[in-house]
Amino acid sequence: MDGPTNPMVTPLLTDLYQFTMAYAYWKAGKHNDRAVFDLYFRKNPFGGEFTVFAGLEECIKLIANFKLTEEEISFICETLPGSCEEGFVKYLRNIDCSDVEVYAISEGTVVFPKVPLLRVEGPVAVVQLLETPVLNLVNFASLVATNAARHRLVAGKSKMLLEFGLRRAQGPDGAISASKYCYIGGFDATRWFSNNVAAGRLFGIPLRGTHSHAFVSSFMSPDEILERSLHRSDGSSTCEDFVSLVQSWLSKIQWAKALGNTVGETNQSELAAFTSYALAFPNNFLALVDTYDVMRSGVPNFCAVALALNDLGYKSVGIRLDSGDLAYLSGEARKIFQIIEKEFGLPGFGKTSITASNDLNEETLDALNKQGHEVDCYGIGTYLVTCYAQAALGCVFKLVEINNQPRIKLSEDVSKVGERILCRHPFNESKRAYVVPQRVEELLKCYWPGKSGKSSEYIPS
Amino acid sequence: MDGPTNPMVTPLLTDLYQFTMAYAYWKAGKHNDRAVFDLYFRKNPFGGEFTVFAGLEECIKLIANFKLTEEEISFICETLPGSCEEGFVKYLRNIDCSDVEVYAISEGTVVFPKVPLLRVEGPVAVVQLLETPVLNLVNFASLVATNAARHRLVAGKSKMLLEFGLRRAQGPDGAISASKYCYIGGFDATRWFSNNVAAGRLFGIPLRGTHSHAFVSSFMSPDEILERSLHRSDGSSTCEDFVSLVQSWLSKIQWAKALGNTVGETNQSELAAFTSYALAFPNNFLALVDTYDVMRSGVPNFCAVALALNDLGYKSVGIRLDSGDLAYLSGEARKIFQIIEKEFGLPGFGKTSITASNDLNEETLDALNKQGHEVDCYGIGTYLVTCYAQAALGCVFKLVEINNQPRIKLSEDVSKVGERILCRHPFNESKRAYVVPQRVEELLKCYWPGKSGKSSEYIPS
Repeated sequence: MDGPTNPMVTPLLTDLYQFTMAYAYWKAGKHNDRAVFDLYFRKNPFGGEFTVFAGLEECIKLIANFKLTEEEISFICETLPGSCEEGFVKYLRNIDCSDVEVYAISEGTVVFPKVPLLRVEGPVAVVQLLETPVLNLVNFASLVATNAARHRLVAGKSKMLLEFGLRRAQGPDGAISASKYCYIGGFDATRWFSNNVAAGRLFGIPLRGTHSHAFVSSFMSPDEILERSLHRSDGSSTCEDFVSLVQSWLSKIQWAKALGNTVGETNQSELAAFTSYALAFPNNFLALVDTYDVMRSGVPNFCAVALALNDLGYKSVGIRLDSGDLAYLSGEARKIFQIIEKEFGLPGFGKTSITASNDLNEETLDALNKQGHEVDCYGIGTYLVTCYAQAALGCVFKLVEINNQPRIKLSEDVSKVGERILCRHPFNESKRAYVVPQRVEELLKCYWPGKSGKSSEYIPS
Repeated sequence: MDGPTNPMVTPLLTDLYQFTMAYAYWKAGKHNDRAVFDLYFRKNPFGGEFTVFAGLEECIKLIANFKLTEEEISFICETLPGSCEEGFVKYLRNIDCSDVEVYAISEGTVVFPKVPLLRVEGPVAVVQLLETPVLNLVNFASLVATNAARHRLVAGKSKMLLEFGLRRAQGPDGAISASKYCYIGGFDATRWFSNNVAAGRLFGIPLRGTHSHAFVSSFMSPDEILERSLHRSDGSSTCEDFVSLVQSWLSKIQWAKALGNTVGETNQSELAAFTSYALAFPNNFLALVDTYDVMRSGVPNFCAVALALNDLGYKSVGIRLDSGDLAYLSGEARKIFQIIEKEFGLPGFGKTSITASNDLNEETLDALNKQGHEVDCYGIGTYLVTCYAQAALGCVFKLVEINNQPRIKLSEDVSKVGERILCRHPFNESKRAYVVPQRVEELLKCYWPGKSGKSSEYIPS
């Protein structure tokens, strides 16, 4: 999941008041006071029982590269209310995170409310500058990873989950972050490219593509197709008129008694679009079958093209449904595929993949499961990437210690395996319980040791 | 509102299927078919009656700079399922938007459902490549501009509105887009910096800063303050011990009969923080007064520092409330300010600015209005920038014409001023009405003429 630094993430991705405070700390001679801040949230999102912690890697990159440019320093000084002193400019020039230490739970861990996910120690003025970008990077990353994990739980392990959200995401980078953290949360692929190179390339996320309704309606009839030849998949020979081959298969389907003569005339614009797409991608034929009528046109047209491709040694990928009753339509399409497998002797055709999209979310996935369906793969967009059910996670970054003086005091008893210990609720005295730990694990590991030279789990390049 | 191009917005900010379709169009010899696509939405967001159209400038920048790099072309060809032909690579190298024309409603206009906001004409393969980024750029921009406008309507014209959302926004650019389009939608300022240089600098948005709760709790007592001197605002003399001056004002407030002896001991950590902040920003003293107790500590401490500043010729900005009953607390604080104005003879002190923050949204602003309050300025974060009440706008980009063949047909009657005309609903025959137009205005203007050389309203540099 490594990748280039996000160009949006710089020391100026912060609230102005972090710099006004830095100036006030500096004026008071307090800027190097040693502070400890904890990052945590108070409530799991989506009314749920867990959160997936994400965004750590980007935080560490920010910290590793934290250095103000001369241009940024001039802008800060212009922007601070009133004039700022030359000594402060010198101080800003020398700021970096070499005196900062970061301890965190590892990225992708399931976490719970009120438990520190990230602890940042260092000079109070510098750590305050980190507050806003760190919250920005963790809040949405964890929210969308959690949302993806929740969709994965409802869909089940065996289904393929694709992220379809670019067009409705909250800005270009809202989309890029979403794509990366959906993958962490258990998605299989995204359908879109991304900045400079690609979300796929950027984070190593697989890409999946097909075509749109506009592609279907942009065709009028198969007569439009000029280049009609297609090599066999093994290269041994060439079919000179693939369009006719498709049409002959379509009539076989229309006359097949096993299909009960239910297939009449199909839409020719759609047939032309499918045929063209198959000529371009004979190894990856995935057809959107609901532009006109799924069962009377889309599925028979798909089957005709798929059977013609099969003649030339190509295996089709499947169909996509983007509207209607997905449970019913997927079931009906599956029946047709199974009949065709039997009728025309095509082993495996009954298992042709069915992808469903169209404003899917946790509730619609759950409803599909309850109704019974034949969908193999889901494309999930808006509800996933915008976290529509709850658009923000409320992580906070709280000062817990300054110059070794606690500002929030929690128990720091050292626990041992096998010993009965009394656990107290930090804020509610009446809540307490005895537990006997079977295993004791440090939740926070060092991810950025600063120049203190402590051993580090992860130092980015 | 001009600014540099967003580095995230490149031709690869698109769905993979736009490139698989481009290849299929090219294979079928259809890639240069002349297509017309309309962008519109079906329903106003937030259950409302209007939408503010935004994102156009960024779309035009994308279109003006639309050119694939060699690196991007190699990635596309690697990623397309199966192999892509050399002729297609040559085609990709030559793609730009010189044959594309863009007509649009101007940015910031109030718009309604089912009305085309943007019409893109050009070679079908190129216009399809634009679909996803254009939707991404318009959907969130229009959503957040609408959300900002709705908050402005509830808050009223006279209030100052600040955007506070960076830490909870959907990724760094979710924040940057939000900040820009909140300003378009009627906000006064943002409190944060941004990429490379700054949201402020990037878009010319004013910045406002203060301090946080952590700043307050990082101080122990005024004894910590080492540098205690402060020049008078006119530079005529220097107060050698501003800390003592503040303390003498605090006792005057504590003993003031007009305040009913209600002020007891205030929090010394808070007093130290306010004093330090005032020493750093004597011309811009804005204090967060709710870390401990607003009425017993925060407001009296603020007044003591503000009165000391006044002695030296400085006018304080005001207070910020970030918790509690904002209607009640703002009213009580206003009373204190008015009493102090009278008691100590400080004209204008009664009008000291009160800023409120803390998870504000349309409903809480409305509730405050109904209760009556003394807030002058609102800082609005999460609910604003994530569009919490509805996290996505569903704009679509529909093929309406190909090679002059309509794919959706709407009336194109030319209307004249003063003539009675029959208006029909496009989809519901029974809905119709006679109207007499008083003014006829072209909704769509040309924003990108391509090389056709038509006059253009706006061509970006």
